[in-house]
Amino acid sequence: MKNIIEENELEMMGRHSLAHVLAKAVVKLFPTAKLAIGPAISDGFYYDFDVETPFNQEDFSKIEKEMKSIINKGENFKKNIVSKDEALNLFKNNSYKTELINDFSDDEEISLYYLGDDFFDLCRGPHVENTKALQNYGFKIARVSGAYWRGSEKNKMLQRIYVYAFKNKEDLLKHIEMIENAIKRDHNKLGRELGIFTTVDYIGQGLPILLPNGARIIQILQRFVEDEEQKRGWQLTKTPYMAKSDLYKISGHWDHYKDGMFIIGDEKNSKEVLALRPMTCPFQYQAYLNKSRSYRDLPLRYNETSTLFRNEDSGEMHGLIRVRQFTISEGHLMCTPEQLEEEFKSCVELAIFMLKTLGLYEDASYRFSQWDPTHKEKYIGTDSQWEEAQSAMENILNHLNIPYSIGVGEAAFYGPKLDIQIKNVFGKEDTLITIQIDQMLAEKFGMEYVDKDGVKKNPYIIHRTSLGCYERTLAYLIEKYAGAFPLWLAPTQVKVMNISDNSLDYANEISKILKENNIRVEEDFRNEKIGYKIREAQLMKVPYMIIIGDKEAETKTISIRGRNNENASLLELNSFIDRLKNEIQTKKI
Amino acid sequence: MKNIIEENELEMMGRHSLAHVLAKAVVKLFPTAKLAIGPAISDGFYYDFDVETPFNQEDFSKIEKEMKSIINKGENFKKNIVSKDEALNLFKNNSYKTELINDFSDDEEISLYYLGDDFFDLCRGPHVENTKALQNYGFKIARVSGAYWRGSEKNKMLQRIYVYAFKNKEDLLKHIEMIENAIKRDHNKLGRELGIFTTVDYIGQGLPILLPNGARIIQILQRFVEDEEQKRGWQLTKTPYMAKSDLYKISGHWDHYKDGMFIIGDEKNSKEVLALRPMTCPFQYQAYLNKSRSYRDLPLRYNETSTLFRNEDSGEMHGLIRVRQFTISEGHLMCTPEQLEEEFKSCVELAIFMLKTLGLYEDASYRFSQWDPTHKEKYIGTDSQWEEAQSAMENILNHLNIPYSIGVGEAAFYGPKLDIQIKNVFGKEDTLITIQIDQMLAEKFGMEYVDKDGVKKNPYIIHRTSLGCYERTLAYLIEKYAGAFPLWLAPTQVKVMNISDNSLDYANEISKILKENNIRVEEDFRNEKIGYKIREAQLMKVPYMIIIGDKEAETKTISIRGRNNENASLLELNSFIDRLKNEIQTKKI
Repeated sequence: MKNIIEENELEMMGRHSLAHVLAKAVVKLFPTAKLAIGPAISDGFYYDFDVETPFNQEDFSKIEKEMKSIINKGENFKKNIVSKDEALNLFKNNSYKTELINDFSDDEEISLYYLGDDFFDLCRGPHVENTKALQNYGFKIARVSGAYWRGSEKNKMLQRIYVYAFKNKEDLLKHIEMIENAIKRDHNKLGRELGIFTTVDYIGQGLPILLPNGARIIQILQRFVEDEEQKRGWQLTKTPYMAKSDLYKISGHWDHYKDGMFIIGDEKNSKEVLALRPMTCPFQYQAYLNKSRSYRDLPLRYNETSTLFRNEDSGEMHGLIRVRQFTISEGHLMCTPEQLEEEFKSCVELAIFMLKTLGLYEDASYRFSQWDPTHKEKYIGTDSQWEEAQSAMENILNHLNIPYSIGVGEAAFYGPKLDIQIKNVFGKEDTLITIQIDQMLAEKFGMEYVDKDGVKKNPYIIHRTSLGCYERTLAYLIEKYAGAFPLWLAPTQVKVMNISDNSLDYANEISKILKENNIRVEEDFRNEKIGYKIREAQLMKVPYMIIIGDKEAETKTISIRGRNNENASLLELNSFIDRLKNEIQTKKI
Repeated sequence: MKNIIEENELEMMGRHSLAHVLAKAVVKLFPTAKLAIGPAISDGFYYDFDVETPFNQEDFSKIEKEMKSIINKGENFKKNIVSKDEALNLFKNNSYKTELINDFSDDEEISLYYLGDDFFDLCRGPHVENTKALQNYGFKIARVSGAYWRGSEKNKMLQRIYVYAFKNKEDLLKHIEMIENAIKRDHNKLGRELGIFTTVDYIGQGLPILLPNGARIIQILQRFVEDEEQKRGWQLTKTPYMAKSDLYKISGHWDHYKDGMFIIGDEKNSKEVLALRPMTCPFQYQAYLNKSRSYRDLPLRYNETSTLFRNEDSGEMHGLIRVRQFTISEGHLMCTPEQLEEEFKSCVELAIFMLKTLGLYEDASYRFSQWDPTHKEKYIGTDSQWEEAQSAMENILNHLNIPYSIGVGEAAFYGPKLDIQIKNVFGKEDTLITIQIDQMLAEKFGMEYVDKDGVKKNPYIIHRTSLGCYERTLAYLIEKYAGAFPLWLAPTQVKVMNISDNSLDYANEISKILKENNIRVEEDFRNEKIGYKIREAQLMKVPYMIIIGDKEAETKTISIRGRNNENASLLELNSFIDRLKNEIQTKKI
């Protein structure tokens, strides 16, 4: 483990050093370029430049050539500590560095790094000693894009050069291959091409429109999840998407989550302040509170196909993965302390069942998200409540024997979480599923049960999702399958196409029978060449094509072609329908 | 028709006159009472009084007795026209009447009506000539409730006495019977008792919480509607619940519907103003706009299970019928002018199919909702566009041969509507389903298709719901069936109960088999008397009870009892399951 960390640190140092090499190369080729900042990132580094003309593709090879020449010269990196005044003087012609230097406090050390004798940059280091150490590195300019100085629209737009950089050439090639593959699978591109979703400027960021293909997949997922939950003893609720601020003041959202919420009205001028819900918890608790409860009623499991609203920053929104409105299979389970472990386990089992059914299980990892005791203001509850809830979760996780990492400061404001993380095709990790232990909110809402001993007690609450939000899950499914969904999820399962008008009647008959068997059919009876029709269906990744020509019409058979098969096979309709039904019913991946 | 109207007018005049009789009686019995206003309403009249102590039940019979005595005396109603100054002087001790008199313009006639010589009231009339004419009337004080003067919370709370009043005693008795029956069916009471919904003060008015029984029924309805729509060629979308104000400015909602919308942020202080959607139209159009369209693509039918938000006044909200957030099967259909009639007809057929399936068809009536040309500011579009759209709808309605009333000023701001109206148990009418013709919004959003002649044209748009909003539909279903839902809709279809612990294993086995057959089962295996269990299930209107005792366990049979049957019948489980499945599949009412 330790070796991996050290190797990673070495690689980051190399990237960091390469950023200086890039800066030196750019300044040589574009003497008026002003340097801003250039940090290392997970697959290389970037550097922001203030230049008169944006860089173009042709500049890339010139810059790379110059970088290689610097590396091969074997120039030294040399640290030089300077006073704030010296620093300000050295960078007096660079407003960006001047701003950075002014941000230093008086007792902080300010260091420059020289690269050779003729180039220096403001930097904390560390760096390799000599550029020869970078000779084995594989690097390649990935792209250039506009970026505001310090991320603010009020500042000047700079040119950011992104560079992939790895400690050897093989890793670079592997990464480039991964990226090329990822681009093909990117849900934000493929999802639009497949008629799954679109976005519209005048509607707003993070508010995707699910087109018929996307809405159909989510409908199928939603029904599957609701039915599975019902089988496992969950009771459906349907609660409002907004409430008066009074509710959120009880739950703690008003104090701990207000910035992430959409508020309607304000406390000064409105007779009523409402807010859209960022979570379902305080709404679903009302079902519990609707009756008095005894230990005999527990566990009580409530599920809901729940739409939530979160006021994300505009910079954070991305396709279907990070949005401002989403729908999720949210549930809350009220139980006694004795039931907690068993019920938590059943929630984990449900989540794993979902991931396995969708084929996403192998991409998932577990994170035990804990509170950050150095920032107690972010949470409700006492130290001992947190200790109790976290040690309960730790015990359960250890009994479950699942490997997990720990995320300090990643807990919900009311309790610790088991987060099931998933990476997208570009390697970015997000939470898909979460299962949480909460022993605080029941008290706040006066949720009680009469225990065996006749004493009123607050139940434990498990907050959980059984699958991630449908939008995000759909994004991962698009990327996982590159749009070629398993049959049970495919918006169109079979496309029926005729070769000529002669076979139109029979093609219509086939289509009708398939529909009667609840197969999702699309028809392509246009007056187009069959090759053209097939290519179009393949582009839309339709699982099966039925091609009807004279031969099929005469022999009352059908020609089947899978989306990946070159050759068609001749079949009887009934046996094909059986095959389809079996593939759908078993949810074959 | 004319006679009915005249008779209604007579009845209203009688009610109006009785209001004076009530006022005179109250003033005699409670000399310090101050009169406010007392209009006739659809089932009688009310009168608001300013009194020191609220009226109670015992006062009712005293007041009724005094009213009868006034009527039997045969007192005359006599009109007396006075100047504004005279009127102000006569009512100088009554601040309410003074306020009303001050509202008169200088050229308006101010009239008093004397009742006998010792009582007069400010009134426009007309009245019966003598109270003898009221002797055949049936009247009864219905209830008393607090009511703010002029409906404003800022004013004093008055005591409002409601009186049922009809032109004969039979009508009164019929009405009282209807009300008593309605109270038993009132969804706002029964819906809470049956665990269908609840409301919570700190969440807010018009934001009901659907408990498991209610959420289950809506889930069943929603799936039924979505599947039926899919069969009929509608394509599902899922669009966001909010958008930037930019969208509503294009659609016209910002100018014509803003008061009914929930707005997030304000144009002065917020970088972005968002609003929750009151309708789906401008969102769903984006699916049409996602591609270029030709006449070959039309008709295009988009449906959505859509949640909408309307900022209703607090006084208007009622149970599940009038709420601030609701979910509806909303759809938009884009077609050519030639397709309009056929497609409109198919929307009406879908609506009728839905109403018939749910058993609500007989309670529905049709209203052709037109614009009000004297208030053009409420609408978009030109006179000729309205004429065209309305005459298109009139033609279609006449061809459909359905009887309809006309509602002037009831159109949407963008076009005429066919509204399917339904009455609740108290006789109050609301719109359940609407089908609308719109030839204006396509132009505003740049929605086009290339016609056969190669020319780009705007399609007609049909806005329609295939069923009413689910919350309102649920309310009508509760009232229609008094909570005894048809089997396919019943949240719990079968309740299995054991007579003693001896039969527990067999009861469990039965329950398990039913669940495997997708029957919604609840178990009552408590250690309670079987009579108690049966009464509880009957109270919850569970369609079937399975009662398992020693005899059933031994003979491997089951005893079935319907919710209305006194006697149980012995059956084999399999034949009962077949019966259930058939009843569910045929959606037997």
